[in-house]
Amino acid sequence: MTKQPHKSLAVFPNGVSWTPVDEALEHLRLSLKPILDFEFINVSDSLDYILYEDILANRSNPPVGNTAVDGFGFAHQSIKNKNKKLNLCVDRIAAGDSYQGIVPQGSAIKILTGAELPRGVDTVVLQEEVTIENDNIILNTDLKRGENTRKVGEDIEKGKCVLTKGSRIRAQDIALLIATGINQIKVYLLLKIGILSTGNELIHKVSNKDSNKTLDANRPMLMNIVKKWGYQSIDLGNVNDNKTEIKTKLNIASEICDIIFTSGGASTGDEDYVGRLLKSDGNLYNWRIAMKPGRPLALAKWNETPVIGLPGNPVAAFVCTIVFGRPICGLLSGEGWLKPNSFQVPAAFSKNKKIGRREYLRARVKNGKVEIFHSEGSGRISSLSWADGLVELREETSKVNLGDLVKYIPFNGVF
Amino acid sequence: MTKQPHKSLAVFPNGVSWTPVDEALEHLRLSLKPILDFEFINVSDSLDYILYEDILANRSNPPVGNTAVDGFGFAHQSIKNKNKKLNLCVDRIAAGDSYQGIVPQGSAIKILTGAELPRGVDTVVLQEEVTIENDNIILNTDLKRGENTRKVGEDIEKGKCVLTKGSRIRAQDIALLIATGINQIKVYLLLKIGILSTGNELIHKVSNKDSNKTLDANRPMLMNIVKKWGYQSIDLGNVNDNKTEIKTKLNIASEICDIIFTSGGASTGDEDYVGRLLKSDGNLYNWRIAMKPGRPLALAKWNETPVIGLPGNPVAAFVCTIVFGRPICGLLSGEGWLKPNSFQVPAAFSKNKKIGRREYLRARVKNGKVEIFHSEGSGRISSLSWADGLVELREETSKVNLGDLVKYIPFNGVF
Repeated sequence: MTKQPHKSLAVFPNGVSWTPVDEALEHLRLSLKPILDFEFINVSDSLDYILYEDILANRSNPPVGNTAVDGFGFAHQSIKNKNKKLNLCVDRIAAGDSYQGIVPQGSAIKILTGAELPRGVDTVVLQEEVTIENDNIILNTDLKRGENTRKVGEDIEKGKCVLTKGSRIRAQDIALLIATGINQIKVYLLLKIGILSTGNELIHKVSNKDSNKTLDANRPMLMNIVKKWGYQSIDLGNVNDNKTEIKTKLNIASEICDIIFTSGGASTGDEDYVGRLLKSDGNLYNWRIAMKPGRPLALAKWNETPVIGLPGNPVAAFVCTIVFGRPICGLLSGEGWLKPNSFQVPAAFSKNKKIGRREYLRARVKNGKVEIFHSEGSGRISSLSWADGLVELREETSKVNLGDLVKYIPFNGVF
Repeated sequence: MTKQPHKSLAVFPNGVSWTPVDEALEHLRLSLKPILDFEFINVSDSLDYILYEDILANRSNPPVGNTAVDGFGFAHQSIKNKNKKLNLCVDRIAAGDSYQGIVPQGSAIKILTGAELPRGVDTVVLQEEVTIENDNIILNTDLKRGENTRKVGEDIEKGKCVLTKGSRIRAQDIALLIATGINQIKVYLLLKIGILSTGNELIHKVSNKDSNKTLDANRPMLMNIVKKWGYQSIDLGNVNDNKTEIKTKLNIASEICDIIFTSGGASTGDEDYVGRLLKSDGNLYNWRIAMKPGRPLALAKWNETPVIGLPGNPVAAFVCTIVFGRPICGLLSGEGWLKPNSFQVPAAFSKNKKIGRREYLRARVKNGKVEIFHSEGSGRISSLSWADGLVELREETSKVNLGDLVKYIPFNGVF
């Protein structure tokens, strides 16, 4: 255990005001609005789309009373007074059959799982719980009225709300929509997220002459995060550190995208063209968030289109995308402001921490405990591959002891 | 709290041997083998593909030593003997620059985040931590050698293993592959999963004449589960409860699919054509697993192609797909045998349970506690929409008390 935080963490200059993560998030939550365009889409193709309105059942599920098991159906009235013997009808009803007959009181009929209960039947006995004797069955068990049956609409009644506006459609929701007779749904248009990399140092293929240059890992990473989120990514390519080039690109992007993610140059230093441009022309809200990693993160608007100016460092870009990008996109896309799933997990590590800032540690769970990557260096892209989630340590936390419960955010919960 | 399990749960006939979930899983794990075909794919397009071989770095990350901050670079030797004053060079090095000069001992040079350290520089001081006086900078802090710099290969050294065979590619893995100079990777062909629904009772659109029939919710649900898993789904449509039709379909499917998921008719009753066919011609391994929901589940092979015969009930089909389908597909696809992520979460419910069988309860976490759906009825498709995960109760569990830690499997961890 290190007694002191690593020296290089002590990077927040004094005399500058740093905005807490929650304050920045709350500002964004209140200042952004969902896009308003919608389309109609087939339910089967609606995975990861977001509902534009509440959906009401077109029919009940189940549509008719049916049997939950293979067995024999009869009227419960028939076994009053402890009668256990029922006359067996010759017919048999399977799922999908439209049986027109009536089962007389005192009689039972063979009925198979999923089949509609015929008139005269309200209760079913499992076939394993009867003895067959000539033309009769003898019940070897007691039954309540309605046992082993499913009542019409017991899952959902026709006209009732099936799924609410803002729901993101999952595979099981598709099952529910189909079962309740819904073929098409009104959904928000997929959020269009523009991805732009900036920096003279970036190259896209290794070559000998550029051996000191940086391969642009952010753009493909962000494109694929967006894909995983189920939104539409727009590849805005790469621009050099040149004010005019960046400005032109942002002008075009703000026309075709609902939100723009840039990476690189997000601070306001000499070469931080994105940050400086957002400050002068981009209605910059903030670029000093008290979090680690994640400095600098620029939050702005370009021609009313939100811009998230991510740090060039892939680790910081990744963490900011989870912490800020995900809820912002949720809100814009109609899904609402989402907090990532998290779990309280015992720490397999101990750590001293500077108070006053939020820290996100690359982490994973092993044997029920959460461990963190051996280095906090934000240049360690390998740590993102190593990790399955993040540990979030709040501003007021100064120390984590082995075994303390800490907040663990699995990546699976945000992608 | 119900004192007794619901009567309708007591459905496991006596005198029949039921296979524990773990025993069935272990049998499958040992008897199945991954498909062996591969392809080459661009890293940027490789999301959710599975690596066919270990990947070694084509170059180091970072490729050269660089600065982690905006600041002034110098040789640490220059500040030995408590010297705090350094002569400031006129040049400035930004990321992407190829600076050819040498910084003399006793001097410092302005250097911006990500820029390569020039010869003569091994340490960087943050610009906020110096005072500039004429042509000199005065350091207001102590620094260790190498501080605020990133060493060549400190993340990954050229030739070292970046990702291992069997890894499923995530967005952050794409960043790592690109940063280490990888353009193409060898991956397993996407697993091809055939989805077949069976049952005379199934319809695909609501109509008045079929008001008692069941809308086929399973096939679109399963197609979308497969999509979410990142595999390739093959829609095998729907067949009636007819031995010849099912046989023909399985023959074709086993030629074009790596694995087949059927739903409906998986038991061995009168109308359970799938189960009976798998028993007579399909090398049926098992169809009596001691789990709830999930009865009956048929595990078989048709012409050497694994077949998972799911129950017709969407709730049971969904649970079996998570519990059996996911690890089986993981193994076949080259990803290996995966256990779903799970967390120990305090129960917001209490419940008595029959020992001897595994139960999966539809669940979700609220305020740090896991709650379960109000009904255990397996006809309740709405419970799947309500839920965000499953609580797994083991065979030996007979009771859950309020506040007990239970195993919670979030759906996000399996999709």
